[in-house]
Amino acid sequence: VITCRAAIAWTANAPLSIEEVEVDPPKPGEVRIKIVSSGLCGTDKHILEGKDKVPLPAILGHEGTGIVESIGEGVTTVQPGDKVLIFLLPECGECRFCLHPKGNMCVKENILSPTGLMLDGTSRFTCRGRKIYLYGTSTFTEYTVVHEIAVGKIDAAAPLDKVCIMSCAVPTGFGVVFNTARVTPGSTCVIFGLGGIGSAVVMGCKASGASRIIGVDIIEDKFPWARALGVTDCLNPQNLKRPVQEVVVEMTGGGADFAFEAVGLTDTMVAAFESCHVSYGVCVIIGVAPSAAKLSFDPLMLLPGRTLKGATLGEYKTRSCIPKLVTDYMQRKFNTDSLITHQFPFEKINKAFELFRSEHCHAYVYVPA
Amino acid sequence: VITCRAAIAWTANAPLSIEEVEVDPPKPGEVRIKIVSSGLCGTDKHILEGKDKVPLPAILGHEGTGIVESIGEGVTTVQPGDKVLIFLLPECGECRFCLHPKGNMCVKENILSPTGLMLDGTSRFTCRGRKIYLYGTSTFTEYTVVHEIAVGKIDAAAPLDKVCIMSCAVPTGFGVVFNTARVTPGSTCVIFGLGGIGSAVVMGCKASGASRIIGVDIIEDKFPWARALGVTDCLNPQNLKRPVQEVVVEMTGGGADFAFEAVGLTDTMVAAFESCHVSYGVCVIIGVAPSAAKLSFDPLMLLPGRTLKGATLGEYKTRSCIPKLVTDYMQRKFNTDSLITHQFPFEKINKAFELFRSEHCHAYVYVPA
Ligand SMILES: NC(=O)c1ccc[n+]([C@@H]2O[C@H](COP(=O)([O-])OP(=O)(O)OC[C@H]3O[C@@H](n4cnc5c(N)ncnc54)[C@H](O)[C@@H]3O)[C@@H](O)[C@H]2O)c1
Ligand SMILES: NC(=O)c1ccc[n+]([C@@H]2O[C@H](COP(=O)([O-])OP(=O)(O)OC[C@H]3O[C@@H](n4cnc5c(N)ncnc54)[C@H](O)[C@@H]3O)[C@@H](O)[C@H]2O)c1
Ligand SMILES: [Zn+2]
Ligand SMILES: [Zn+2]
Ligand SMILES: [Zn+2]
Ligand SMILES: [Zn+2]
Repeated sequence: VITCRAAIAWTANAPLSIEEVEVDPPKPGEVRIKIVSSGLCGTDKHILEGKDKVPLPAILGHEGTGIVESIGEGVTTVQPGDKVLIFLLPECGECRFCLHPKGNMCVKENILSPTGLMLDGTSRFTCRGRKIYLYGTSTFTEYTVVHEIAVGKIDAAAPLDKVCIMSCAVPTGFGVVFNTARVTPGSTCVIFGLGGIGSAVVMGCKASGASRIIGVDIIEDKFPWARALGVTDCLNPQNLKRPVQEVVVEMTGGGADFAFEAVGLTDTMVAAFESCHVSYGVCVIIGVAPSAAKLSFDPLMLLPGRTLKGATLGEYKTRSCIPKLVTDYMQRKFNTDSLITHQFPFEKINKAFELFRSEHCHAYVYVPA
Repeated sequence: VITCRAAIAWTANAPLSIEEVEVDPPKPGEVRIKIVSSGLCGTDKHILEGKDKVPLPAILGHEGTGIVESIGEGVTTVQPGDKVLIFLLPECGECRFCLHPKGNMCVKENILSPTGLMLDGTSRFTCRGRKIYLYGTSTFTEYTVVHEIAVGKIDAAAPLDKVCIMSCAVPTGFGVVFNTARVTPGSTCVIFGLGGIGSAVVMGCKASGASRIIGVDIIEDKFPWARALGVTDCLNPQNLKRPVQEVVVEMTGGGADFAFEAVGLTDTMVAAFESCHVSYGVCVIIGVAPSAAKLSFDPLMLLPGRTLKGATLGEYKTRSCIPKLVTDYMQRKFNTDSLITHQFPFEKINKAFELFRSEHCHAYVYVPA
């Protein structure tokens, strides 16, 4: 048992509480990891705002890098000392879903209704004598325990603070562009939400040769950042006299080839959908809507040929594909450093969340332990 | 001006009225056609039941074959005497949509809000001194006038009664399978609605090598027909204790690879969507929902990777692709004759619609003039 600090979400709508926790040793098939860097994702923000319901009290955070501290019985793919990326979606490599050529929904995780527990139905965290739930991979702690199948070994030279975003934001943003939408050169793209995820989407669209990239956000401070990444036109729906989708349809002479929703609201999902071309437009939903929300639209919107898709972690099979992104990064095939706007020490995590919510912070805030 | 018989829909929820009409000569770019055969499509049925609002009084019918009677100025691609297929969607070949490699929504037609008029804003039909609206290509008449861009010349030896269904049902059903969903060998498919369109979808799935084809309908008389076409399992939702989508998910160990909705109700659209696999399932909406209907579902349904698409006429570019289906039929590459269950003389069109609505009629009813 290791005693260390963790940031505990006792309830929604309250700051995280940094406390001492006991972290149990890994059971068979599990790995205990010393967290080095952890990202703040919109998904954590939704949970803290009470929009997405998950079992609490919990240790949140699911975007992280670290070093393997110890391994449970039967673990063969990583060893103590290995640098690793930690994934919200495991890849067991054996289930029907893992074996299917498409998709990345391993049966060993149910992201739609998280249990807050390991596969054996228990938790490895205790705080003041009370069991604490996990959320996905629980990275807002100095040590965490995850299943071996949720861990990907990466290059020993990888800078763990910089590649931390390869755990969620980068594969999510790149994957929707390369795997889900398959953005084509010369195409027109529109991205709703220019936070961490939306920014990674912009980078992917730019890399795919999109000739026009329209960024939509209600915080105009995001626009200079977005332009630097490749956005050609910025729209703030709150400053428009007409619905933003009408403006996008007009600007693009009929609708964007590809639309992405990276906000997490049903209104922006519908707006993104209506922004894409009536006949060949493809709209990808990335944002996580509040629990029990309903997406509602006239089905005639689909009939002329539109496509509506969703994706988690950009449809990358996590362990087999995402560590390669780190290799590509190390070989300077792309540079995602500009997606990281801030770094904070672990104890400043509430300050980081404040900034993440505020107008003056661009998307990414980092919390190296 | 030709005087002939046409079946007029004066209002919804009333039989068609067979009356004498005057059919104006074709204007520039238009073609007057002697209709030889015309199919009854669910879309006509919806209009007659008042579910889809279009300008009335009108001559309905949009699935038809005929022989060119005369051509307007500037028409070059067909001549009097040519056998033709008539298409609800024109293909001008010049607009941005026609030039785009994907999709078939030519800007010269707005299927989402039909005007009931030719492109010049007038109609070619008069009945008892009153102008009658057209619907798409108005085939429930002995003569019709359509734009040259909505007509495809076919093999002079083609049997016009048999290939009539190549005008709507066959490309719609085949196209959603081959172009939209791209059904793969060994896959599992589920089809909601085993009418004319659903049956063509079944045929396409079978031809694509699907290993399991689940058919869903509330009229069990359809089941023997469906099995003959390739359906392996038949479900009547009204005889199930649980929602049909739950049964399909269980039968397929997680959901079908491909789901098709060929009914035209939002409930069956949601059921079809939920029937497809959470991660890699693709659901294609073919049915036309009642005017102003709303499709409503939890957007989390999309997030693990599902795809929801729509298609009109199976995404075939009409003039450039559909006449080839007739050639393939003539070369016996496939045989769609079994999709045609009944033929009626023109004056029995109301009897045909009655049968089309009743339990004892399988989907297709024909009306050779
Ligand atoms: N599908 C996945 O795999 C996946 C992975 C990570 C995150 N997510 C989800 O993606 C979404 C974005 O995450 P993030 O980390 O980028 O969050 P973020 O808070 O950094 O970004 C959200 C952006 O949306 C903007 N916004 C808010 N309301 C808006 C509106 N009405 N119109 C336009 N823009 C608006 C915000 O100003 C912000 O810039 C969240 O819903 C998150 O849960 C999904
Ligand atoms: N997208 C396109 O290009 C296109 C082309 C043609 C037709 N359509 C549409 O496709 C749909 C089907 O057309 P069709 O000609 O096959 O009509 P149809 O009436 O022959 O077939 C509809 C079938 O659905 C069944 N059905 C009715 N309610 C049901 C329920 N609750 N659950 C399961 N099955 C149910 C009926 O019994 C019938 O067999 C219509 O909505 C039509 O407007 C679309
Ligand atoms: Zn995330
Ligand atoms: Zn698996
Ligand atoms: Zn039709
Ligand atoms: Zn055109």
